[in-house]
Amino acid sequence: MLAGEDVFDRFRKLSRLNPDSCGQRVILTDENTRVHCLPLLLERMPELENAMVLVIPAGEQEKTLAGATRIWMELNAAGAGGSTQIICLGGGMVTDLGGFAAAAYHRGLPLTLIPTSLIGQLDAAIGGKTAVNLENLKNQVGFFHVPDFVLIYPPFLNTLPRGHLRSGIAEMVKSYLLGNPESWRRIKKLNVEQLLADVPDDLGWRKWVLPAIKYKVSVVRRDFHEHNLRKALNFGHTLGHAFETLSLGRTSGPLTHGEAVAAGILCESWLSALKTGLAAIHLEEISAFLKKGFPLFDLNAEDIPKILQYLRSDKKNRNGRTAFSLLEKPGKPVINVTCTPDEITDALNYYRKTLNSAT
Amino acid sequence: MLAGEDVFDRFRKLSRLNPDSCGQRVILTDENTRVHCLPLLLERMPELENAMVLVIPAGEQEKTLAGATRIWMELNAAGAGGSTQIICLGGGMVTDLGGFAAAAYHRGLPLTLIPTSLIGQLDAAIGGKTAVNLENLKNQVGFFHVPDFVLIYPPFLNTLPRGHLRSGIAEMVKSYLLGNPESWRRIKKLNVEQLLADVPDDLGWRKWVLPAIKYKVSVVRRDFHEHNLRKALNFGHTLGHAFETLSLGRTSGPLTHGEAVAAGILCESWLSALKTGLAAIHLEEISAFLKKGFPLFDLNAEDIPKILQYLRSDKKNRNGRTAFSLLEKPGKPVINVTCTPDEITDALNYYRKTLNSAT
Repeated sequence: MLAGEDVFDRFRKLSRLNPDSCGQRVILTDENTRVHCLPLLLERMPELENAMVLVIPAGEQEKTLAGATRIWMELNAAGAGGSTQIICLGGGMVTDLGGFAAAAYHRGLPLTLIPTSLIGQLDAAIGGKTAVNLENLKNQVGFFHVPDFVLIYPPFLNTLPRGHLRSGIAEMVKSYLLGNPESWRRIKKLNVEQLLADVPDDLGWRKWVLPAIKYKVSVVRRDFHEHNLRKALNFGHTLGHAFETLSLGRTSGPLTHGEAVAAGILCESWLSALKTGLAAIHLEEISAFLKKGFPLFDLNAEDIPKILQYLRSDKKNRNGRTAFSLLEKPGKPVINVTCTPDEITDALNYYRKTLNSAT
Repeated sequence: MLAGEDVFDRFRKLSRLNPDSCGQRVILTDENTRVHCLPLLLERMPELENAMVLVIPAGEQEKTLAGATRIWMELNAAGAGGSTQIICLGGGMVTDLGGFAAAAYHRGLPLTLIPTSLIGQLDAAIGGKTAVNLENLKNQVGFFHVPDFVLIYPPFLNTLPRGHLRSGIAEMVKSYLLGNPESWRRIKKLNVEQLLADVPDDLGWRKWVLPAIKYKVSVVRRDFHEHNLRKALNFGHTLGHAFETLSLGRTSGPLTHGEAVAAGILCESWLSALKTGLAAIHLEEISAFLKKGFPLFDLNAEDIPKILQYLRSDKKNRNGRTAFSLLEKPGKPVINVTCTPDEITDALNYYRKTLNSAT
């Protein structure tokens, strides 16, 4: 993994040393990154001018087997073979889907990921996970496929709408709660609007994004296949994914991943207070920070059984109980904490109360 | 990998030691192996009586993303999670497709393969390759996923129709030509009908099948990801797959995989004589053995451009030339031999001449 302003120079040097680098190159972008990020990439790496550019529709609805099949048919039509390198330029959708397509085409093509979103830079593109959704089931089907390179170039963050950055801040906060208590102490005094202004500039990126990247890398190095430590990263995501799925049916439009994760962190912090001894002061601070920074999701009493049903299909379900990754305190995650449907219901009702007290 | 009459006893002992073995078990069969092999398996392993049995349609047309999706939806409906073990009981189609489904569901479930066909036992189930076809493109999409166990139980061969066994003999002969010249010297004196009677009995299995299994295991151990040595196993398969695809459109019905491979070995032995110095006597002996044992495919002059077109989409295509794995002599394969369309055309015309001389 290479991160920083000079990633392309370092990439150029390293890929000259790579015997695979003589193959055809295919740049995968979505409609947005083709417009906002591809010109910047070609300016920094003019040698990619001749690469084939494959543009896919933007948005999570493309992250399916059908979306992957479209990529495979294009690769096939272009005569792509085992030495073809796939370069994914985009957010988590592009790197998850493009990584999946690269992992399975001819049993694995060389892969370079260039995440352009905040979530992509600090989370999705790090750690070799690729996936597509199966109907409503997020990331149900996928592979571990290690990219040859992950290039993290901070200026891409300047191309993002504020809503996208906000979404990434939820993941950043999750990372701090799990592994950077010092960063958590610093960030909790700020509000998300202040961070939005700070993160994209180079100094802010170094201060806020880099610690989250380093934490993710350290976890993945120690437990690539998610047998234990890496499970901690699911904090906020078990219920977060459920919120995300639930929101798909709403007329108000789907939640962004980060908004869903913010709601998930709130509920799972409550579960942490119940099950793993998270102190009330921490729960309050987390709740206060997230309430200020993220729109709350309008959760009704009738939604709760739907969420419980959804959890039964979740990857983390074990014999009818859902295994959560929770917190003992900031910097100290606890994995494999099973919670009953009643406990989860209470957590969701806590969220509903928070919601009411906020309005 | 466990092979022999006592595999189930050894499997039982080893899987008791495996911490994953407490999970739900799902046996994947096709319509044929459910009838002919599942009762035998349950007789030997009564503890599997409570396993969920998932039955898929028999035949190559199921080996697609749609077929994999059907398996994933069934697994999801059954609440399958990361500790669910998939046990594939069947021929190459079941182990390739079931392996693919297991490799990708929740980024990888524990997998046990129980190949019941001769091709499965000596080839398809060994080496961690999984795949599905994409439209007409064989094994275009797949993944390397190492099974926890491969159980090779000779008596399953008794459940097979003779045509299936014949198909496996083509792969067995390929294995001998590549890595067992002594076995090749013994087998070339026999004819396929004699072998068909011999292979399924236990002594015949030890004499004929086991050396092929050992060769495959030794190659895969040395080059799991097919960077070099393992490519040798493609001998006969580059044109074999082309014959197989071509035959799909025929009113005479598709070739079995083994029949297609027999035709492929014939053509690629001719290419070996041209490109890698295979002696004329070896080419004649290979040709004579295969002509006696396998129905010849009715290849027309108009088929040749179709085959050349097909090769351009093959995984082994490099910059418009097709890389073949050929023979210098029995026991000495040569990999990465590129052949021009003209050379391939000559090889196919040799096959057509052989065909005419045989009728």
